[in-house]
Order: sequence, then C-alpha cells, then structure tokens
Amino acid sequence: MRPLKLGMVGGGQGAFIGGVHRMAARLDGHWQLVAGAFSSDAVRAHASAAELGIDLDRSYGSFTDMAAQEAAHPDRIDAVAIVTPNHMHAPAAIAFLEAGIPVICDKPLTATMDQAHALAQTVRDTGTPFFLTHNYTGYPLIREARAMVARGDLGKIRVIQAEYAQGWLAQPLEGEGQKQAAWRTDPDKSGAGGAIGDIGTHALNLLSFVTGEVPAHLSADLQSFVSGRKLDDNAHITLRFDSGARGMIWASQVAVGCENGLRLRIYGDEAGLEWSQEDPNRMKLTSLNAPARWLTRAGAGTSDLATRIPAGHPEGYLEAFATLYAEIARALRGENEAAELVPGLNAGLEGMAFISACVASSSTGGKWVSLD
Amino acid sequence: MRPLKLGMVGGGQGAFIGGVHRMAARLDGHWQLVAGAFSSDAVRAHASAAELGIDLDRSYGSFTDMAAQEAAHPDRIDAVAIVTPNHMHAPAAIAFLEAGIPVICDKPLTATMDQAHALAQTVRDTGTPFFLTHNYTGYPLIREARAMVARGDLGKIRVIQAEYAQGWLAQPLEGEGQKQAAWRTDPDKSGAGGAIGDIGTHALNLLSFVTGEVPAHLSADLQSFVSGRKLDDNAHITLRFDSGARGMIWASQVAVGCENGLRLRIYGDEAGLEWSQEDPNRMKLTSLNAPARWLTRAGAGTSDLATRIPAGHPEGYLEAFATLYAEIARALRGENEAAELVPGLNAGLEGMAFISACVASSSTGGKWVSLD
Amino acid sequence: MRPLKLGMVGGGQGAFIGGVHRMAARLDGHWQLVAGAFSSDAVRAHASAAELGIDLDRSYGSFTDMAAQEAAHPDRIDAVAIVTPNHMHAPAAIAFLEAGIPVICDKPLTATMDQAHALAQTVRDTGTPFFLTHNYTGYPLIREARAMVARGDLGKIRVIQAEYAQGWLAQPLEGEGQKQAAWRTDPDKSGAGGAIGDIGTHALNLLSFVTGEVPAHLSADLQSFVSGRKLDDNAHITLRFDSGARGMIWASQVAVGCENGLRLRIYGDEAGLEWSQEDPNRMKLTSLNAPARWLTRAGAGTSDLATRIPAGHPEGYLEAFATLYAEIARALRGENEAAELVPGLNAGLEGMAFISACVASSSTGGKWVSLD
Amino acid sequence: MRPLKLGMVGGGQGAFIGGVHRMAARLDGHWQLVAGAFSSDAVRAHASAAELGIDLDRSYGSFTDMAAQEAAHPDRIDAVAIVTPNHMHAPAAIAFLEAGIPVICDKPLTATMDQAHALAQTVRDTGTPFFLTHNYTGYPLIREARAMVARGDLGKIRVIQAEYAQGWLAQPLEGEGQKQAAWRTDPDKSGAGGAIGDIGTHALNLLSFVTGEVPAHLSADLQSFVSGRKLDDNAHITLRFDSGARGMIWASQVAVGCENGLRLRIYGDEAGLEWSQEDPNRMKLTSLNAPARWLTRAGAGTSDLATRIPAGHPEGYLEAFATLYAEIARALRGENEAAELVPGLNAGLEGMAFISACVASSSTGGKWVSLD
Repeated sequence: MRPLKLGMVGGGQGAFIGGVHRMAARLDGHWQLVAGAFSSDAVRAHASAAELGIDLDRSYGSFTDMAAQEAAHPDRIDAVAIVTPNHMHAPAAIAFLEAGIPVICDKPLTATMDQAHALAQTVRDTGTPFFLTHNYTGYPLIREARAMVARGDLGKIRVIQAEYAQGWLAQPLEGEGQKQAAWRTDPDKSGAGGAIGDIGTHALNLLSFVTGEVPAHLSADLQSFVSGRKLDDNAHITLRFDSGARGMIWASQVAVGCENGLRLRIYGDEAGLEWSQEDPNRMKLTSLNAPARWLTRAGAGTSDLATRIPAGHPEGYLEAFATLYAEIARALRGENEAAELVPGLNAGLEGMAFISACVASSSTGGKWVSLD
Repeated sequence: MRPLKLGMVGGGQGAFIGGVHRMAARLDGHWQLVAGAFSSDAVRAHASAAELGIDLDRSYGSFTDMAAQEAAHPDRIDAVAIVTPNHMHAPAAIAFLEAGIPVICDKPLTATMDQAHALAQTVRDTGTPFFLTHNYTGYPLIREARAMVARGDLGKIRVIQAEYAQGWLAQPLEGEGQKQAAWRTDPDKSGAGGAIGDIGTHALNLLSFVTGEVPAHLSADLQSFVSGRKLDDNAHITLRFDSGARGMIWASQVAVGCENGLRLRIYGDEAGLEWSQEDPNRMKLTSLNAPARWLTRAGAGTSDLATRIPAGHPEGYLEAFATLYAEIARALRGENEAAELVPGLNAGLEGMAFISACVASSSTGGKWVSLD
Repeated sequence: MRPLKLGMVGGGQGAFIGGVHRMAARLDGHWQLVAGAFSSDAVRAHASAAELGIDLDRSYGSFTDMAAQEAAHPDRIDAVAIVTPNHMHAPAAIAFLEAGIPVICDKPLTATMDQAHALAQTVRDTGTPFFLTHNYTGYPLIREARAMVARGDLGKIRVIQAEYAQGWLAQPLEGEGQKQAAWRTDPDKSGAGGAIGDIGTHALNLLSFVTGEVPAHLSADLQSFVSGRKLDDNAHITLRFDSGARGMIWASQVAVGCENGLRLRIYGDEAGLEWSQEDPNRMKLTSLNAPARWLTRAGAGTSDLATRIPAGHPEGYLEAFATLYAEIARALRGENEAAELVPGLNAGLEGMAFISACVASSSTGGKWVSLD
Repeated sequence: MRPLKLGMVGGGQGAFIGGVHRMAARLDGHWQLVAGAFSSDAVRAHASAAELGIDLDRSYGSFTDMAAQEAAHPDRIDAVAIVTPNHMHAPAAIAFLEAGIPVICDKPLTATMDQAHALAQTVRDTGTPFFLTHNYTGYPLIREARAMVARGDLGKIRVIQAEYAQGWLAQPLEGEGQKQAAWRTDPDKSGAGGAIGDIGTHALNLLSFVTGEVPAHLSADLQSFVSGRKLDDNAHITLRFDSGARGMIWASQVAVGCENGLRLRIYGDEAGLEWSQEDPNRMKLTSLNAPARWLTRAGAGTSDLATRIPAGHPEGYLEAFATLYAEIARALRGENEAAELVPGLNAGLEGMAFISACVASSSTGGKWVSLD
C-alpha cells in the first residue's frame, strides 16, 4: 500500500512539535511528507525544506500560497499537518479546509473562542475532514481504559482525578529568549490560557476520552507564580459532571522537577484505575475486595489495542502519536471506524470552552461556571 | 530510667486505634499502661483490663470515676490516652485536664466546634499539658521535610498538593454492622465532617507541619457518594495561603483500591518534594536543573531525625506513632524542646476550623471561605 | 496476661542489634527486660543496665555469672537473648542451655562449624528451647508467601533468585574504628564467612523458609574487593535443589548505594512471586496468562498472617522482629504451634553448613559442593 | 537529504522482528525499504512485498537471487537487513557481503561457532560493512551509562549484575504450533543456545557495551525445565573479568510473569547504577555517601545522548532500535564516528563464544571456562 502524501505548516528549524509529527507520521509507513510551509520566514522555510528532502517546488513561503497551489496540484497532498503556535491554527486550518484539503491540527484548537467558532463554522460549511492531535489518547493502555469504562468494568464513575504537572516554567525562561517559553506565555499567541491551554486541555481531553464524560460545571483558581508572567502557570480546577461524578484537574508548569506528569485516576463504585504518562505501559486496576492488578501493554488480560510490539518492550510517546497518524490515514482511505477514536473538532471546542470557563471561574472567586 | 505510667480511655475489645496507641507507647520503653476505662460498658471494660494485664483496682467503669480516683491515687498516672470515638474526646479530656492529669488525645480534636472551644478553654484555664496524636508527623522523613522547608531548601513555597485517598467506605459498610464505619459516618459521633474530619484533617495537619503554613481561605466541594450516607465521603478542597502559596486537598473514602494513600507534594521556587505514607522511608527531592534525588530514612544526605534503626530497614507506622509517645514522655519529664514537634491544642483547633470551613464553602457553591 | 521476663547478653552501649531486640520484645507487651550481662566490660555493663532501668542486682559482669545466678533466682528469667558478636554465641548459649534457661540467639548460629556442632549437641543433651532470630521471616507477606508455596499456588518450584545487596562496606571502614565493621570483617569474631555469614545466611534462611527447600549443592565464587580485607565482601553462589529447582544467591557489602537490599523471587511452573525487604508490605504475584497482582499486607486476597495494623499502614522491620519475640513467648507458654515458624537450631546449622560449603566451593574453582 | 535504500531478507507474513526493523528504519526518515526476499516460500514472499508496497520486480524468491540481482541493479540497495531465524544469518549475510552490499544482521550472529568463523572470514575478506542489531544499546540512558563508566564516574568497576528474565516459554508452546517458540527451541535453527542465545547474548552485549569489559572466564549452570525441550530455558552464569570485576548473568524464559526483564546493575568503588529495560527512561545512580539520584532521559544532569524528544515523554523500544538504523545510515554515508557505537562483527563473535563457553562450563559441572 502506497503511503498518503502529507504537507506541513510550521515545524521548521528551531521548532519542536513539527519534528514529532514527522516521526509519528513516518513510523508505520502510512505517510510521506512531500510539501510544506515550514516557517513564516521564507528563507528559513526553504532551508528547512531542503533539510527534510522536500522538493523545492513543494516548499512554500506562506500557508496561503501552499493551500492554493496544493489544491491545484496534480499530485496534491492528502492532508496537511498544522504545527504552528496556537494563534495561527485557525487561519491556516481555514485556508486548507476551504481548499478541500483535510487538516491535522495540533492542540489546542485555536488561541481564542472567536477563532474556534470561525473554524468550527468552516468545518461544518466545507465538510472537509478535521483532526486534532490530542496525542495522549493514542497510548494503548488509554485505549484499554476507555474500553474498560465503556463496558462497565469500573461500575458507575464517581471520582476523576487528572493532573498534568511540569516544572520547566518555574523560572522566567520567556525573558531569556527561549522560543518555546515565549509564545506559550504570550496571550497574543496562546490565547487566554497558559498552563490550562497548553497542558490543562490535554488533561481534560484525556479524562473525557477515557470516561466519555465532559465536565458540566467547574470552579477554578488560576495563578501566575512567576513575576511578570501574563498567563496562568498553575491551575486548580474542581469539576462536576452531569452523571454525578466529581473530579479535579491540577495543571502546573512550576512544579519543579516534574517533567511531563500527566496522570489519570478514575474511581467507580466497583473498581478504580490509575495511569501515568511517564510510565505508560502499566495501568493499575483495583476492584472491590481483590488485590490490585497491574495490566501491562499487550500483556495478559488486555485487549492488545493500538499496540505494535509485544509486552515488556516499552512502546512510547512517538508510537502513541503515530497511532493517531495511522488512524487518520485509515480514515482518509475510507475506513470510517478508524476515525472514531481520533480527536476532532469537538475535542477542540471542548478544550476552548474549558479554557474560557477556567478564566471566568477564577476571575469571579471560584464561582462554579457551567460549561455549556 | 523508669517508664512513665499511662492510663487509657476507650480502646477495649473490638476497638482499633487503642491497640495502636498501646504498641506505640511500649515500643521505646517510655511508658507502662497501668490504668484504664476501656469501655463505656463496665463488663467489657473490666474484661479488656484483664486481657491487658491491668490490676483490676485500676480498671474503671467510666472516665469520670477514673479521673477522680487517679487524681487521688498515690501512684497516679502520668498521662491519659483518649482513644474513644470523636464525640467523647471533649468530655473525657476535660475531666482529666481538670483533674490535673496530662492528656494525649486522638484526632480530630472533638466532634463539634462548640466542644472544641470548651476544650480549648479548659486547656487554657488548667494549664495541664495536652497532646494530639496526628501520628503521621512522627515519620522521620516528614521531620526531614519540615527541616528542609524551614531552612529554605525549597525556596519560597508555591504549590502544596495533599491527598488522602482510601477506598474502604466505597460500599455502605455502616449498614452492615461494621463498628468502625458506623461511628465514622454518624454525625452524632463524628461531627460535621466525614472524610474531611477523619482523614482530611490529617492531610491538613501534615501539610501545615511540614510547611509551617495554615491555609487562610478555602473553597470546597463535598459529596456523599454512597446512598443514604449523611457525611461526606469525598472532598475536593482548593486552598490559598497568606504567603501566596496555593494548594489543594483531596480526601476520599470511596477511591476503590486505595488503602491509606496519604501523600504530600510541595513545590517551591527552587525545589520540590514528594512523600507518600505507604512508602514512608523514601522522599523525592527535585531541585532546579538537577537530577531527582531520593532521600531514604537515615540514608546519605539526611539528618537522621526521629529514627531508630539504620537505613534500608523499613521503619513504619508504629514507629512513627511511637515517636510521638516518646516525645510526650520527654516533654512531661521536662525536656521542653521535645514538645515542640508534638501536635497539641492548636493543631486540633486548626482541624476543627478546617472542617467547619469545608462545610461552609461547599454548602455555598464553592465560595471561598476564610479560615480565621 | 503478665509479660515473660527476659535477660540479655550483649547489647550494651555502642551496640546495634541489642537495641532492636529490646524494641521488638517490648512492642506487643509479651516481654519485660529484667536482667543482663550487657558487656564483657563490667563498668560498661552496669552503666548500660542503669540506662535501661534494670535493677543493679540483676546486672551481671559476665554471662557465666548471669547463667549461674539466674538459674537459682526465685524470679528467674524465662529466656535470654544473646546479641553478642558471632564468636561468643556458642559459649554464652551453652552456658544458659545447661542452666535450663531458654535461649534466643541472634544469627548466624556461631562463628565456626566446630562451635555449631558443640551447640547442637548441648541443645540435644539439655532439651532446653533454642530460637534463632532470622528476623526477616517475621514479615507478614513472607508468611503469606510461605503459605502460598505450601498450598501449591506457584506449582512446582523451578527457579529461586535471592539476593542481599548492601554497600556500607564499599570502603575499608574496619580500619577507621567503626565497631560494626571491625568485628564483621574479622575472622576471629565472625568465622569463615564475611558477607556470606552476615547476610548470605539471611538470604538462605529466607528462601528456605518460604519454599521449604534447602539447597543440596552449590557452586560459589567469593571475593574480597576491599584491599586488605580477610573475609569475602561479595559472593555469587549458584544453587541446586533436590527437587530439581535451580537458584542463586548474590550477597554483597560493596554494592554502593544499596542499603538493605534483601530480595526474593520465586518461579514455579504456574506462578511467580517477588518480594523486597525494603518495600515489605507489597508482593507481586504473577500467574500464567493473568495480569500481575500486587498483594498488600493485610490487603484484599491475603490471609492477614502475623500482622498488627490495617492495610496501607507500613508495618516494618521492628514489627517483623517483634513477631518472632511474640511467637517465642507463646511457645514458652506452651502453644506448640507458635514455635513452628520461629527459626531454631536447624536453621542455624543450615546457615553454618552454607558458609562452609561456599568457602569450599569458591576455593576449588567453583566446583559444585554438596550441602549434606 | 534523501533516505538510503534498504533491502530485507526474512520478515514476511507471520514474522515478528522484521516488522520492528521496518518501523525502526522508517522513524527518522533515513531509510526507505525498496527490495526484499521476505520469505523462503516464494508465494508468501511476493504477497508480503505487495503488502509492504514494494515493487514486484524488487521482490525476490531467495536471498541468493536478491544478492546477485541487487548487486547489479542501477539503483541498488545501500544495505540489507537480515531478519531470518538464526541458522540462516550466515549464508544470507555471506551472500550479500560477497556482493559488496552492507549487512545489518539481527542477533545472535549465527547458529553455530563454525558459521560464525565463516562469516567473520567473509567480513575480513570483503571489507564490506557489517552491523549487528543488539538494539538495547540504542537506549539513551544506556549511552549515558556507557559515557559515565568511561569517564570514571563509577570508579573502578567491581560487580556487574545482568539479568534477562522472561516467562513466555514456561509452557511447551513449541509443541502447540507457536512459530516463534518452535525455532527458538530447535537446535537446528537456533544453535547450541536456547535462553543463552536468544536473550543471554543481549545481556552479555549490554554489560560489555556499558562497561567496555568482556568476561574472561565463566562458570555456568544451564537447565531445561520444560519437559522435552532440547535447549536451555534457564541459565545461571557467574563471570570473572580480567580487570578483577566479578559478575553474573541470569537468563530465563520460564520466569512466569516476567515480560522482557532485561536489567543491568553495575557497582564500582565510587558509585553504582541500575537500569531496567521495561522502565528505560530512568536510571538510578548511587554515589558514596550521597542520596540516590534518578537520571531521566534527556533530564537534568544528562548529556542528552541519542534522544529525540524532551524529558518526561517515554521514548521507547522502537526509538532505541531506530537509533541503530540512524547510526548505520550515518556510518554508510561516511560519518565514521557514527559507527563506533553500533554493534558489529566483534559483538557477534563475543556472543557466539559466550554461548559455547556456557555450554562447555555447564556440561562439565560448573567448571570455570576461559572465553578467549
């Protein structure tokens, strides 16, 4: 089977997540990168294309040019990956959607709710496929957890504890020329959410993906600990779900020594489970009156979902990311069920609503805010 | 050195925490149990005394008798341990304090704020020593953590995450004749707090003991998941400290599979630390730009505080409890600095104020409530 | 029930294991220390007795005096604990056994095989009870493991991996006046075994206690890494059992950073288990084609053997040690089944034969040596 | 930069390791699979080629044809990956080496020492590059460990503990039609080594890679626990190194519940380290008189070797495998230093000598055997 052809917006020299998208896209052989607008700086864009082995006539100086010319290209791309800072997600995605080219967009959806609504409208108007890379949903044991909750292994869900703790912004790196820190702490590029947008939306998406529940109300307390920082770098958010479940999200970028501490714990009235992204190949399952069981990826007692190699071999972050790219490829080839698990527009809109609600609650003294 | 003489109220046949107090009191040889009112049922009280090898003329049918007669006894007890359900703490403690006999009281202080104030008044009026067994403060690495925070190893404290997760009340055991469950879910015996009183106050005390900070405001969401239960069995509490630090407490008795998951994480602007009661002989210390270090009890790099045996030998729950009894003995023998670390009346009052504030916040929609 | 009366030989000022024996003996209230010959130096002996609150007419200047006078005392001790360096175990034990006083002896049995045979002969001749404190057998989950193997949960045992890794002798502490290091590395006081005697015998005893099997043949490679050291500080020992099982013991005192790494892994043809002394309240159980289960002390699925407090509270080293003292007390009071689990003379003789066989194998180039 | 062109021998439908090689080769974009002799069954070979999107004129029915025709092809492959059962490694590799095509060979080198010598002769005669995929050497923290040992962070190495525990062959799967089990337990296809060849050589290679030391003598005890099995499924091997270090390898395929338990512990006279393949992004470093430090992949205090993504994101098995493919690509493009870390012929010869020595020692009662 020939690979699908992929284009990319962003991800040039000095960028981080673009390189991850490329590795993930390559892993299973479903995709071949053939075109890109790798930077808003044309010189850097073409230099990046050369490094990546892209033909220079498929290297574009802007996403507008790229959308227009690729739409007309006889061997046009099958999808475009948008891996720019947040504020460029909406304009770039809209350009490709309108050109009829499916979009694979990094999270969060956009920088502002206004952009989110505009993008949503475009998706609806054009009917062009849209995918959002909430990559943590690709871990095999997260798929397993979702299946377990769906078939009732945990009973009725009561408590959902999600957290995403990082420490890399404990100091004012944005004032020291660190590019990743600079745009993430800049409201013009990230929108209203700092930690809540960058990592809180991942925690939200993950808990929703696994439980099938989106919070109905929240009460938030956002804080900027680093002097001069304009966006939150720590957030405590208490959640209520329509099902009666309660929960919380703690998102922090100032938890010194935490690297990428995305962790999910779910307790139903019959069993509980615990999973941590830094140790993703194990999941603790605790049923009433039974010893704790540790499921391992592809190990005994699992359904072997979304996994590539046998148990005991650490399948990791890239592989989880690649699962999304593989499913997107299958979806675009017409396997509709493949798309069911890939986050899409709704996941993005939920994230944007979450950011808005956090800001609203925290700024009104922790008042409970509806997420409708 | 001869051991001090200990009396006990409660802790007869069928009780739990009384036996723990006795083992802890014996461990270091500082105490000898010589008297008791082990049950409000006189037959059971005397049977318990016989089992414990207590002379029957020191076995009393009520704490009132015991306080009166011990006060007049030529070889009277040096202190009394009160290990009854919560609602009896205040009357029993007051009786002994007024008799001039020092009191070692199990937590929480009392069942109601009114009782707490009455007890506090008695302590002030009589000047008799009063100790509260927030036993988790006795762990060597908790002492180490406190010393580290005090000398500034973590820098300025920003985020404090405390949790106490249990699963033993995930089902309605109180309806099945389980004595421990029955009084803990009964407002008449426990007061206004369920999980927040039974275990939330431990989390509160632990974070305050280590950081030296008591929360100034809180916003709480309490929930009773088990049908018919009158007190909270799950609580999410967001905290603000006057120093600017933020934090949270999650206390749950319905987290299926959690045994005694008391856990503390503290992040300052220079370092963070993590400690878990179920693995109490290790503590993770993460400093800016350095690999994580794991301190072990009595291991390299520690001050060897409150420890009895060399590193690598698991010193545990009983030993931590015994540290409190040892320090109380030393305090009663006149070593004043020994008393500094033992929780006393203030720790109890803070716990009671915490319970009241949680109830007040949760019942007003998560409004932030002051703890003054 | 009144406590039994305990005497002690050794364990005075500056000693380590004597204090541990005293805490363990006190924990459950079964024992009261009333007499001792705490040092071979009479001044130090009496000073130690005073500190311990022992009446001075029960403080003896030598174990010979003590055995003679206690045997004739109207309120004579019910047992004596011998906690001296290894070379004194035999003479002291023999003196008390001949006086008709039961002996609780620290491990290993003696310093030499000749002493071991003499002691064994005395036990047989006098019929006086003799106990050996291989304390690690007192951990609740070790009791659980023994019961699991006995009832066939693991199937037929195939592989037994035991290790005991310490790092405290990685440097020549014996040349720096460290008393604990000095006698342990001195053949005159420890006998032919260094690491194999001090900790290898613990590993041997533990694997035998749990599996019910004693190795039949071994091949050993002993090494002294620290320059000038006369006894082994690292040992690799391969084992064969008559049942067909194979196994190994690694014992080291030079594994830098290891504190007290006693670890046992056992694999049968139906299941395997793993346990580590530094994390003694959890045990991994892996059955064919099933997820790994983690048993916790007193937790779901366990038999709650030899445990004092509920699951989730770390019961530790002292409590395990105390279990032996409690069982010895019960045995001396006539509960015969209580004695079944307490290591006795045979465990000691097995340890001595093990040391001899290790030395013999290693000195003949790893030749397999029979343990008969 | 255009990818190099890769061919493959073996790895067709039903195979395991071939698919892993393909994913690893794709991950970084250095390789493109363009040709193959995917099976010795021509029908299956071509069906596999079609599935993989290989042009049918580059799908060959035998490795002999493939070597001959590719050597003459105008766009000939830059290297061939040999991923057949062990007994075919030598003939296939020799065919390509003689055709001047670089070889990337799965481990162990060959099935017999005779084959190994023939292959070694061919490598020397032809001068064609030869690489061996001991893939575990590609883990970032293994690279870090190697650098640490090399620069003396551990001091002089004393003890090396390596183990590789699996449980998948605890039952006679080879009699149930399981293809992976069948050839691994068949001396005609695997050679003289069962567990020692399949996984023991990995443990050997890993310890040599990290320490730079190859054992000089060994004493082995091999065992087949499963009835009727012709090759060892459990091995205890004691090692001596010329440097004076001692060590051991435990390799087992019958350790029920172990998945892929490759673990390495190294102790020098100044520090020790521990690493486990199932948790490969953390490494424990213990220096004399200091708290244990946990290095994380790409985390604080590391050199960030061979890593693709930031700390906290689990980089795993495929990524480690891909590191070898990337380095081979760089080596073939003339970056000589890239080849230094990739296992080659010598690593393979060491593995073969190890298997022979294990068999020789075990069959002569654990006699120490030289590895020269």
